Amino acid sequence: MVCSQCTIKPVMRLTNNTITLCKACFSRYLEAKVKKTIRKHHLIEKGDHIGIAVSGGKDSSTLLHLLGKTFKERKDIKITAIAIDEGIEGYRDECLNFVKPLCEKYKIPLYIKSFKEEIGTTLDEVLKKEKIKPCSFCGVMRRYLLNKTAKELGITKLATGHNLDDEAQTILLNQIRRNTKTSARLGPLTGIIDDKKFIRRIKPLYFLTEKEIATYAYLHNLMTRFNECPHSHEAVRDDIRNLLNTLEAKYEGTKQSIVAAFLETLPSLKEHYKKEGNTLKYCQLCEEPSSQEICQRCNLLNKYSKKSNVILS
Amino acid sequence: MVCSQCTIKPVMRLTNNTITLCKACFSRYLEAKVKKTIRKHHLIEKGDHIGIAVSGGKDSSTLLHLLGKTFKERKDIKITAIAIDEGIEGYRDECLNFVKPLCEKYKIPLYIKSFKEEIGTTLDEVLKKEKIKPCSFCGVMRRYLLNKTAKELGITKLATGHNLDDEAQTILLNQIRRNTKTSARLGPLTGIIDDKKFIRRIKPLYFLTEKEIATYAYLHNLMTRFNECPHSHEAVRDDIRNLLNTLEAKYEGTKQSIVAAFLETLPSLKEHYKKEGNTLKYCQLCEEPSSQEICQRCNLLNKYSKKSNVILS
Repeated sequence: MVCSQCTIKPVMRLTNNTITLCKACFSRYLEAKVKKTIRKHHLIEKGDHIGIAVSGGKDSSTLLHLLGKTFKERKDIKITAIAIDEGIEGYRDECLNFVKPLCEKYKIPLYIKSFKEEIGTTLDEVLKKEKIKPCSFCGVMRRYLLNKTAKELGITKLATGHNLDDEAQTILLNQIRRNTKTSARLGPLTGIIDDKKFIRRIKPLYFLTEKEIATYAYLHNLMTRFNECPHSHEAVRDDIRNLLNTLEAKYEGTKQSIVAAFLETLPSLKEHYKKEGNTLKYCQLCEEPSSQEICQRCNLLNKYSKKSNVILS
Repeated sequence: MVCSQCTIKPVMRLTNNTITLCKACFSRYLEAKVKKTIRKHHLIEKGDHIGIAVSGGKDSSTLLHLLGKTFKERKDIKITAIAIDEGIEGYRDECLNFVKPLCEKYKIPLYIKSFKEEIGTTLDEVLKKEKIKPCSFCGVMRRYLLNKTAKELGITKLATGHNLDDEAQTILLNQIRRNTKTSARLGPLTGIIDDKKFIRRIKPLYFLTEKEIATYAYLHNLMTRFNECPHSHEAVRDDIRNLLNTLEAKYEGTKQSIVAAFLETLPSLKEHYKKEGNTLKYCQLCEEPSSQEICQRCNLLNKYSKKSNVILS
């Protein structure tokens, strides 16, 4: 068997068709796909200052590599990387050690914001003292810090490493949780132009499957040993992931179809919730975007500091 | 353990909560739920002539029983049953023998239309001669005959036994097949008022799970031995059914949530396809509703008669 486009041994068969590609042709295909996503969905445009949320995992490392490579010569587009250090010993520190040389390679400045510095404690410390779900605490704090840092740096769009698998999972998850309102905030580009408080989010890897990214990351040395957070374990999402993988194995293109069907109806979904007057509020304490009067981060910190008798920032 | 509403031994625990009910209380609950669906979604109103598509299976027999019981005293609402006899020996004939006394019990006239009479051949005969998928051939012919018969009888709405499980399956199936346009035609009530050619469809059992209907059917002797067509086997739907049952067992209320989330967005979905100008066409040959110039039924019959050198009606 040879590559469908040249004569070299293939490394990857594309989803939903018979094309097999060698390393060079597959890389060209994947890079072109990301560029097409960026162009078609207006993810990155002249004058943008793109923030990349990097974790050291394969997805965000691939994103960093691809955006670094694509835009390194562009004077009209600025790129900055932001990492959040939650303080998970033996994991995040290792991940960040992997990210640093990658940023240096593409001359992308890297800003590391730590929980320790920002809220006075690490995730490890919180988990020692409190019986809480690590992912909900961490997720709230991470999102808060990412948005706050992005604003401080004058970033116009914040790029994340979300892929097709993530999106298909979230679509189903929101259905199962009866949470269509949350789905209205999905898609490759979210947020509103010129919103001074909520930085728009972009997902350049939106149409790539996890398998494609993993293959690319492996071929380009973007895989760390530390791809999964030791705390990461969301039971329902794990079930949905397995279920989608089972369906995909049997009916190739399932994930693509779910996302494509979703995107077809996304404009009317957004319209629907706009009519309902679903405008973003801002937290009365920290003034960051929130769906409630007081945001989840302030609520959590308030609860935690009271319990632990610690005054947090 | 006793019934949550009286002191009798329970027969059923309701989905997504801790209520257990005895036969009488469960029956009252289920009947009230169907009445609420009919009222809230305007499925049956003064002056309606309701056609019930009956097969002899548990769903349509329960539907027949419930509508018969609910509307038997109503002079302003007429009910007629329609059965399609595809000619599946040892199955449909037995099913119809079950339906006849049920119709007599509620004084509901029953019209049986057979493939033999209408297209000159039975499903069994077609399958002997042709290598075709039984469900696609049968489905097309059944839908055609049901609509045609309903029109001839002056029926205003055609009721089918579709339940919550069916709907949740179809929603996911359409996502996987990237077929959101078809989903816009789902919901408890479809079709347009005063459409002379396409009779509106109603699903009074829409919010009942298959388990609830099976329990009710069992308790009220509405179960035949013949619940499944011998040809019925749709691989993807079977997989989706299993998958949904697995999720439901783990996360109770999954099916309800999927349907509820869908219904929330259905109005905007309908609006979306209306804007796109998705008006129903009519077949140039038989003048029945069709998405193409020539409907699937005419296409299939044409192909079949050419191949078999048989002139079909």
